[in-house]
Amino acid sequence: MADPARPDATATEAGAAMADDDTAAVRTAELEERVAFLEDQWRRALADLDNVRKRTTRELVQARTDERTQVAAQWLHVLDNLDRALEHAGDLERPGGGQHPLLEGVRAVRDQAVALLASLGFPRQEPEMGERFDPRRHEAVATTPRNDVPEGAVVGVVLPGYGEDERQLRPAAVVVATAADDGTAGGMSRPKDAG
Amino acid sequence: MADPARPDATATEAGAAMADDDTAAVRTAELEERVAFLEDQWRRALADLDNVRKRTTRELVQARTDERTQVAAQWLHVLDNLDRALEHAGDLERPGGGQHPLLEGVRAVRDQAVALLASLGFPRQEPEMGERFDPRRHEAVATTPRNDVPEGAVVGVVLPGYGEDERQLRPAAVVVATAADDGTAGGMSRPKDAG
Repeated sequence: MADPARPDATATEAGAAMADDDTAAVRTAELEERVAFLEDQWRRALADLDNVRKRTTRELVQARTDERTQVAAQWLHVLDNLDRALEHAGDLERPGGGQHPLLEGVRAVRDQAVALLASLGFPRQEPEMGERFDPRRHEAVATTPRNDVPEGAVVGVVLPGYGEDERQLRPAAVVVATAADDGTAGGMSRPKDAG
Repeated sequence: MADPARPDATATEAGAAMADDDTAAVRTAELEERVAFLEDQWRRALADLDNVRKRTTRELVQARTDERTQVAAQWLHVLDNLDRALEHAGDLERPGGGQHPLLEGVRAVRDQAVALLASLGFPRQEPEMGERFDPRRHEAVATTPRNDVPEGAVVGVVLPGYGEDERQLRPAAVVVATAADDGTAGGMSRPKDAG
């Protein structure tokens, strides 16, 4: 121990060094805290970057799918009208089995349009007569009392559907059988809940 | 300075404190370097994040535009074939000015398809006779020697174009006038550079 009555230079230096040591300890603690904070922030920023990149990849796929679906839905109206126009062409069938060139050409274009919608992910769906009504693929546009088929069977197709599984462009518009009260098949009627 | 011949406890402590001080200085310098490094990395990660977010917004718009264009280009083939089918329908015009229902229906569908392409950003372009050939909007599919119009004038349209300004779905396929060597208008010929 240094004699307190005779402090010498060495003791003074030691005291100063110890005071510096305290300051240095505080400074070190501050720096360590800052390092921990920055490491955490950097890690978070990198994680955010990774998430944004992953999300972007998903969003780009989704944006393309949405756009393709929207555009396909608009062309579906064109295809429906082509189908409708063809319904008025019966007299262009020629007796020998041939067709008028316009009828032949338009049928080919209609088939091309159906194939294109299928290639875009929306194959044409024609429900089979008698299959059970499925709200995921069918829309009931009318009902008709029938006693020859089970209630809920599809008994008519007004418009074909387009799509498959989870990706439906449009459900098929169908007529659905209801129970015939008196055993006689009646006329077609709109469903009660139709808008 | 402590007397080297009589080292006392205080001098020893002071020496230890000074050694600690050196260690602390090294540690502080290391920490300061680490802080500077982390601040830089954090700043870069945040800048990257900002850039990725901005780029994503642009990429999403571009993905939608690309997809719309690709799908529209596929439907353009359907429209071309509809136009082609209509070329074979002359005899379905009725003497009184009426049309066969199929012809009427298909023309309406063709007009609907043209309007749809326009709404997707690709209006139909029918070059005017005599307008100057413009490689951004026209594709020369044939040339013909003519002395009644300037060289390079459009003198026939084989297929209409679709698009506007920078966004061309397809240039119009046109016949272009070349200088008539002998002053007589000759037949149509393929351009020399056509593939």
